Amino acid sequence: MIIKEVAQVAPEPVMPGVGIRWVLTQADGVPNYVMRVIELAPGTLFKPHHHPYEHEIYVLEGEGVLLDEQGEVGSLHPGLAVFVPPDARHGYKNTGTGTLKFICVIPAKDSPR
Amino acid sequence: MIIKEVAQVAPEPVMPGVGIRWVLTQADGVPNYVMRVIELAPGTLFKPHHHPYEHEIYVLEGEGVLLDEQGEVGSLHPGLAVFVPPDARHGYKNTGTGTLKFICVIPAKDSPR
Repeated sequence: MIIKEVAQVAPEPVMPGVGIRWVLTQADGVPNYVMRVIELAPGTLFKPHHHPYEHEIYVLEGEGVLLDEQGEVGSLHPGLAVFVPPDARHGYKNTGTGTLKFICVIPAKDSPR
Repeated sequence: MIIKEVAQVAPEPVMPGVGIRWVLTQADGVPNYVMRVIELAPGTLFKPHHHPYEHEIYVLEGEGVLLDEQGEVGSLHPGLAVFVPPDARHGYKNTGTGTLKFICVIPAKDSPR
């Protein structure tokens, strides 16, 4: 078994205000899916985008909104889960005062790691 | 997109002291993996067992220990992630005073839901 303190997996910047912690990846031997933690600084908008693979999300900390191509579709807060189907347009905005932090699982076959 | 308040997904008992919330399942259209939240009541032991598919775990709440066939291999606490490879023997014990609660992702092809 592989055990990791997620706080010790450094977040890697992907754009201003957005970091990804690559928690469980193909380097760990995962066969089917990869677990990341995504973090948005207060005020950060991760613009709606899409890709041919799904997300399964669980919000850990913070407050924000979930966006699709039309605009806001719901609030993001701890204890909320979201399934983003393949090709669905989705984005996030941190509307709180702390970090917006969520688990985001993607298929290993579509993951760079 | 499918948005769920995990607190509103009722835990289903699987053995005394253990419940599973089936958060994102094949009924939601997930193509590759299923997200559950597993909850152990204080003092509960989920004995070591194994199966041919992996787990990816993220501890949300509570305190416990992770077990393999030899015994204790580490503590479980919020912010800890665990990869349990296919066929690895694994178990959990809640050693705290509150619910031990963790996300546990499994492959859709091996999930009953």
